[in-house]
Amino acid sequence: MIYFDTTPKDDGFRMPGEFEHHLGCWMLWPERCDTWRLGAKPAQYAFTEIAKAIVNFEPLTVCVSAEQFKNARYLLDGRIRVVEISSDDAWMRDVGPTFVVNKNGSVRGVDWDFNAWGGIKEGIYFPWNKDAVVAQKVLEIEGIDSYKAPFVLEGGSIHTDGEGTALTTRECLLNCNRNPDLNENEIEELLKKYLNVERIIWLDKGVFQDETNGHVDNLCCFVKPGEVLLTWTDDKSDPQYEISENARRALLNSVDAKGRKLKIHTIHQPGPLYRTREECFGIDFDTNAAPREQGDRLAASYVNFYIANNGVVVPLFDDEFDEPAIKIFEQLFPGRKIVGILSREILLGGGNIHCITQQQPG
Amino acid sequence: MIYFDTTPKDDGFRMPGEFEHHLGCWMLWPERCDTWRLGAKPAQYAFTEIAKAIVNFEPLTVCVSAEQFKNARYLLDGRIRVVEISSDDAWMRDVGPTFVVNKNGSVRGVDWDFNAWGGIKEGIYFPWNKDAVVAQKVLEIEGIDSYKAPFVLEGGSIHTDGEGTALTTRECLLNCNRNPDLNENEIEELLKKYLNVERIIWLDKGVFQDETNGHVDNLCCFVKPGEVLLTWTDDKSDPQYEISENARRALLNSVDAKGRKLKIHTIHQPGPLYRTREECFGIDFDTNAAPREQGDRLAASYVNFYIANNGVVVPLFDDEFDEPAIKIFEQLFPGRKIVGILSREILLGGGNIHCITQQQPG
Repeated sequence: MIYFDTTPKDDGFRMPGEFEHHLGCWMLWPERCDTWRLGAKPAQYAFTEIAKAIVNFEPLTVCVSAEQFKNARYLLDGRIRVVEISSDDAWMRDVGPTFVVNKNGSVRGVDWDFNAWGGIKEGIYFPWNKDAVVAQKVLEIEGIDSYKAPFVLEGGSIHTDGEGTALTTRECLLNCNRNPDLNENEIEELLKKYLNVERIIWLDKGVFQDETNGHVDNLCCFVKPGEVLLTWTDDKSDPQYEISENARRALLNSVDAKGRKLKIHTIHQPGPLYRTREECFGIDFDTNAAPREQGDRLAASYVNFYIANNGVVVPLFDDEFDEPAIKIFEQLFPGRKIVGILSREILLGGGNIHCITQQQPG
Repeated sequence: MIYFDTTPKDDGFRMPGEFEHHLGCWMLWPERCDTWRLGAKPAQYAFTEIAKAIVNFEPLTVCVSAEQFKNARYLLDGRIRVVEISSDDAWMRDVGPTFVVNKNGSVRGVDWDFNAWGGIKEGIYFPWNKDAVVAQKVLEIEGIDSYKAPFVLEGGSIHTDGEGTALTTRECLLNCNRNPDLNENEIEELLKKYLNVERIIWLDKGVFQDETNGHVDNLCCFVKPGEVLLTWTDDKSDPQYEISENARRALLNSVDAKGRKLKIHTIHQPGPLYRTREECFGIDFDTNAAPREQGDRLAASYVNFYIANNGVVVPLFDDEFDEPAIKIFEQLFPGRKIVGILSREILLGGGNIHCITQQQPG
C-alpha cells in the first residue's frame, strides 16, 4: 500500500455521500472492559445484531483482536468476513479510513491522524496506538492506496453530500484538543483538499453531553444532496433545544456547494435518557478511560444511523419516539428498507450505529 | 467463510502442483526470540530479502502481529501486502491453508489440524493456539470457503504433482506424535480425499536431523509431473547418504497416478553445516521451545526452495555446492528465472524458503 504525497483534490478523488453505492462496510469488535460493561458481552451481542442487519444489505468485514477472533467468528453471521485487526476500542467510523472515489470508480483511502477524541489530557482513553493503525490495516487488506492527512480528524466529525459540500461542527474540529495550531480557515482549507469539497457548513455544537466533543454524525446528516436530518427536541428547557435550534438557524442560512438552500428535516430525540445504576455495574475502573457514572445523560440521537445499499439501519431505544422516528426514516428513504435495532448498549459505550460502521464506496 | 462437510474429492477440487500458476503467495513474519537469535532481527532481514524476491514474480501477503506491524511494513517492499495475523512462529507452509482448485478455476482451502510438529511432549513449542487459526484467518481475508481436515498435517509434509500423485514420508505422517490412531492405510485414504489424489508415494525418512520429523519438502519434490528432485550426498559415511539412497530406491520402484516411472534428479546437499557458537548467542531460553545448541547438525537442503510464477527462489548457503545447485535449477526450470538467496538465518530457525511460503493457486 502506497501513501501519496498529493491530496484527493489534486487527483480528482472525492468523498461520496453515504447514500451512494457501497462495495461494503467495516466494523470493529467491542472488547475493552472499561468502556463496555460485563466483559463487553452485552455490547458484543448488540454489535452482532447490527452486523447481521448490515450484511443483509451489503458485504461486511468485522475486525477483531486475536484473543476474540474465535468468539467473534462464532457469534457473527457466516456471510460476514472476520479478520484480525487489533484496536483500542470499537469505533470504526472514527479510526477507519475515509474512502474517496474518482470518476472512473477507483477508490483510495484517507488516513487521518487520531488522538482518541482529545489527546492525553482530554481524550477518552490512553493509549490509542492500535487505533492509530486500523485505517492502514484496512487499506492493506483491500490493496487500496491512500493519503495521509496531516491533521487530527475522526470520521464521525464530518458528513458530505458527495456534491461538494461538507457538514461539521466547530465544537469538535476547532477544539484545541485536536489541532491547536490550526484556525477555522486552515481547517477549511484542509477539509477542502482531503474531502475534495468546495463548501463547509459549520454548525456550532454537537449533541448535549456527547463525549466526542460534538461529532456531527450524532446531530445532523445529509439524507440526499440538498436535504439534511437534524436531531430535535420540543422541550425548550432541555439543553439540547438551544443546540438544535442554533444548528437549524445555521442550516437555514446556508447554501450548499451547488448554491441550493437546504431542506431541513428534524427528528425528535428519545428520552432524555440516563445511565442507570444497573448499567454502571460491571464496568472496569481505569484512570486512563472516561468514567461511566449513574445518572449520566446519554447523548442519544436517531441521527446516528447507517445508510446501507437499499437499507437504513436505525438505532432504537425502546422509547416513545421510536415509532415516529421510524416513520420519518420511511418517508426520507422511500427506496430503502428501514431496519430498527435496539442499540442502547452501544449508546452506553459512547456512540451508536453510525459510530461503529464505515462504508466502503464502490 | 464456510467450512464444508464434504471433502475436496467429493466436490472435484484437487491440490495443484506448486509449478502451476499462482494467484499469489503468503508468508508470516518471524518474531519469537526462542527460535530466532538476536530478537529475530537477522531473520527478519532474511525474510525481507526472500519476500522481495517473490514479489518480483507474484503478489505476496506477509502476515504479522500487531506489535511488529509497523516494523514489517517499514522493512518490506511497498508492493507487498502486509496484514495483521498473529502466529506462534513463522512457518506459513505448515500452518497456512492448502489451496485446492477445480476445473472452473474456483479455489477452496484445506485447514489441517496442527500440533506444532508433535504435540505437547514432542512438538517444537507450546502453545500453538495462534498458529492453529492462521489458515482460517488467511481464508477469511480472501473470502475462500474451506474444508476442515480431521487429522494433523503440516503443508511441508506433502507435495503433489497436480495429476493425482502425492509424495510424503512415513517418518512424519506415520509418527505417533501426529495421528496415533491412524495407520498407513487410513492416512492414505484421508490424503486421497483431502488432496484428491489416487496414489501416494511413501518415502521412509526425511533429511537427517530435520526437527519436523522428516518433512518431505526438505528432501524431495516434484519439479513437474513425472520428475522429482531429491537431496543427495556422495559421502557414504554421512547419515544422509542412506536416507537419500533409500528414497531413491523407493522412487525408482514407484509409478505415479498416471502410471509413469519417475525421472529422478538429485542435488548435492551443502555442507554438512553445523550451528556455530556465535549463532547460539542471543537465543532466548524457554523450556517450551526446542533447544538450539552449538554443533547442532543443520538440516540443510537445496530442495527447500519455492516455485513462483516464472521464477524459482532457491536457498543458498555460501557453500561449494551452491553453484552446481544453481546450474541444476537452471536446467530443471528453463522457463523460469532462478534467484538464489543466502538463507542460513532461516535454516538456523529450523526450516528454509519452502517452509516459510505458501502458494495460492489461481
